[in-house]
Amino acid sequence: MSAGWFRRRFLPGGLLSAPGPSRPRASPVPYRRPRFLRGSGSGPGPADASRRPDARPVRSPARGRALPWNAGYAEIINAEKSEFNEDQASCGKLCIRRCEFGAEEDQEWLTLCPEEFLTGHYWALFDGHGGPAAAILAANTLHSCLRRQLEAVVEGMVAAQPPMHLSGHCICPSDPQFVEEKGIRAEDLVIGALESAFQECDEVIGRELEASGQVGGCTALVAVSLQGKLYVANAGDSRAILVRRDEVRPLSSEFTPETERQRIQQLAFVYPELLAGEFTRLEFPRRLKGDDLGQKVLFRDHHMSGWGYKCVEKSDLKYPLIHGQGRQARLLGTLAVSRGLGDHQLRVLDTDIQLKPFLLSVPQVTVLDVDQLELQEEDVVVMATDGLWDVLSNEQVARLVRSFLPGNREDPHRCTAHPWEGHVEGCSPAQSNEPISPLSQSLLSFFLLATLAVQKQLSIRVSHQWWATRRPGRRT
Amino acid sequence: MSAGWFRRRFLPGGLLSAPGPSRPRASPVPYRRPRFLRGSGSGPGPADASRRPDARPVRSPARGRALPWNAGYAEIINAEKSEFNEDQASCGKLCIRRCEFGAEEDQEWLTLCPEEFLTGHYWALFDGHGGPAAAILAANTLHSCLRRQLEAVVEGMVAAQPPMHLSGHCICPSDPQFVEEKGIRAEDLVIGALESAFQECDEVIGRELEASGQVGGCTALVAVSLQGKLYVANAGDSRAILVRRDEVRPLSSEFTPETERQRIQQLAFVYPELLAGEFTRLEFPRRLKGDDLGQKVLFRDHHMSGWGYKCVEKSDLKYPLIHGQGRQARLLGTLAVSRGLGDHQLRVLDTDIQLKPFLLSVPQVTVLDVDQLELQEEDVVVMATDGLWDVLSNEQVARLVRSFLPGNREDPHRCTAHPWEGHVEGCSPAQSNEPISPLSQSLLSFFLLATLAVQKQLSIRVSHQWWATRRPGRRT
Repeated sequence: MSAGWFRRRFLPGGLLSAPGPSRPRASPVPYRRPRFLRGSGSGPGPADASRRPDARPVRSPARGRALPWNAGYAEIINAEKSEFNEDQASCGKLCIRRCEFGAEEDQEWLTLCPEEFLTGHYWALFDGHGGPAAAILAANTLHSCLRRQLEAVVEGMVAAQPPMHLSGHCICPSDPQFVEEKGIRAEDLVIGALESAFQECDEVIGRELEASGQVGGCTALVAVSLQGKLYVANAGDSRAILVRRDEVRPLSSEFTPETERQRIQQLAFVYPELLAGEFTRLEFPRRLKGDDLGQKVLFRDHHMSGWGYKCVEKSDLKYPLIHGQGRQARLLGTLAVSRGLGDHQLRVLDTDIQLKPFLLSVPQVTVLDVDQLELQEEDVVVMATDGLWDVLSNEQVARLVRSFLPGNREDPHRCTAHPWEGHVEGCSPAQSNEPISPLSQSLLSFFLLATLAVQKQLSIRVSHQWWATRRPGRRT
Repeated sequence: MSAGWFRRRFLPGGLLSAPGPSRPRASPVPYRRPRFLRGSGSGPGPADASRRPDARPVRSPARGRALPWNAGYAEIINAEKSEFNEDQASCGKLCIRRCEFGAEEDQEWLTLCPEEFLTGHYWALFDGHGGPAAAILAANTLHSCLRRQLEAVVEGMVAAQPPMHLSGHCICPSDPQFVEEKGIRAEDLVIGALESAFQECDEVIGRELEASGQVGGCTALVAVSLQGKLYVANAGDSRAILVRRDEVRPLSSEFTPETERQRIQQLAFVYPELLAGEFTRLEFPRRLKGDDLGQKVLFRDHHMSGWGYKCVEKSDLKYPLIHGQGRQARLLGTLAVSRGLGDHQLRVLDTDIQLKPFLLSVPQVTVLDVDQLELQEEDVVVMATDGLWDVLSNEQVARLVRSFLPGNREDPHRCTAHPWEGHVEGCSPAQSNEPISPLSQSLLSFFLLATLAVQKQLSIRVSHQWWATRRPGRRT
């Protein structure tokens, strides 16, 4: 994306602001649930007779096959807030091919023998909004984008130090010194590949949704295990934590209009046209009213971490660019997240004001050096959409995990109720007899918990047990 | 500063880019050293006969009067890199007046009786570049800007919770609830006041330097003690640390072209005109050459924390927006810092490309809750310009402090060699018989260490002792 593209696409008079009406329409993205849920049934079976009558059904992978690293997964059946479940998930094995370099311009990617592959694992959660299409496309596409981006840099990843030139030919004798001075490591290439893959996937979603006349967006939380490290990439308000015996470590940060206030206000400062005179970029503790005119009220602008007082003018009475706090905070009165994929056509209701310029598709990536951590058998990573974190704190989730896992040590499937069937496109299915990688020997386990119940009763199925947790004062 | 102003000022065709040639020129800012050094002499006295022959002279406040909190201060006499010492410092007592609110439009600020004043203390270091004028103006002005900004919000600071309306009249019954939900505390008003004061001071410097036909800029590191808290505001590459018996805690971050790479690249992405086709915004491990054309080399763009590979095009051979690493990193080949005051007229040599659009005058503010810390007598804050931190690490400075202070417990002036004479304009002089504030009773002491020797031999004078520290392999 270039600056020129940005201006043509989003500023008044831009050439790209409306899609061509004569373009033939592609067929809509078909609805589906995650592939690894195939055969698991759509609701609780007879074994679930003990569940509370007000608990909504939970789906987990069918019993018999394991997810990578014997991960557990659970999702709550749609609370009928929307026509379809808007969340999606995918996981699988990542097989990264090496390319053979030649001097010719038309060099080809060559698939070498399997032993030369670099393999990893991939788990992803996508929390959709405005329809399920973006989340489905992300679940179908992002791992392919990531594989492609990783294959483009894999030569650098497997070197002792990423070379200045990917070909390995040292044009300048001091190149290795410069790479070392900049502190560039193999993991920086994986981080760069994740960042690029999210952007590429966002562009694919934009094209596909425009072609099929669909709309929607989604957050994306991805974990990738590769070369002894676990990478967690997050764009949106999902969250991943590492739960250990005596530690709960956040592995991601949430990106919402509140947490990214300064970035969003800064863009509105640089390009006030984006607000079309309908919004104020300033933040106030509440929406101002006519009575406030001429009063000195609390406010924040883009350059401020602290608060000041300003004399209220008429333009301050406009609707704020970011309004509300906590879960109620909205960007342009519309969206509760500030990063994610999709939303290319999203506009403020009854206006031509676009939200996409304020959204970032780039994730923040954190790296967990699994080889350096002395992990115990009960150490797990919990990834979940905001449905879980709205009703349980990190510590509460950790307590749940710690209360269950040690009591089921003999159960090889204790993190997952059922085997997984099928596999994600672009990833090879996990073979039950594949050799255990050094990473899985390190005893790190996964929970993939996709909850679709926002502010609703929450049930998490882990292994064969049910937990029903209800937030005090909330109605089911 | 509005977006319109930014565009008129910095983009091609802007109206404000050149000062009017017919304006009468004001007299230049007179050169001086910090006022509290008066009477301290310009070089080492007879008591310094023991100093090493290759040590450059150090100045400290004259003996007899104490700096606020008995702070120590030392600076090294100019190493003749420039005509004048470009660093400046100031400190003093901050007296914040309360205003009396009336219903009239022409309400006046009233000075109430001294007991009603809110008092604090202020210490500041300014590391100048391109001439001493900006640092002198900052040392003369910033505390007045801060006092003015604090007086504008002091009613909110002394309330149990900052009111939505500064007048205290509650227009909407739910106002306190909104303030609480936003988590706004009195300290947020001080942070906001510091942010605004830095910006106001930057505007004053811009006007004054333009009027007198002078140039230059400076970093600013400020500590303010107020209402039981210590605020550290930093714009530039100076640093403050808290040294305790078993802890060294950074109180600031450095802002350089390297640490603010993404912000700077992002601006160049949004406004490519600012580079005038002469620079590339992309980062490479080293400057590219003709031989690199067509090769895949390591690079980073504004959205990337990690690294990727790109095929080198001709435009990539331009000089990079940010080039070099560590102390050698430069913005537009010119400046080593990315935040500070001044530099309004600074341009890339022999071009019309301005640096000011890429510089921020806003500081980052950290808050130390002095009342919550169980401080010991030897706990001190060390503030210093990069001259100190280039040759000594945080831990080395902490060891120096710890090795000296406990051995001089009986000396009431152990942190400062000499009393301070004079006082900073706009601040009252510290009275030797003033009652000890709760904050100074908390036994936190200050070092103000302004070193002018960058990559040169370093001497720090603390109390009556000399230390001469030389970095191995560096020539004096």
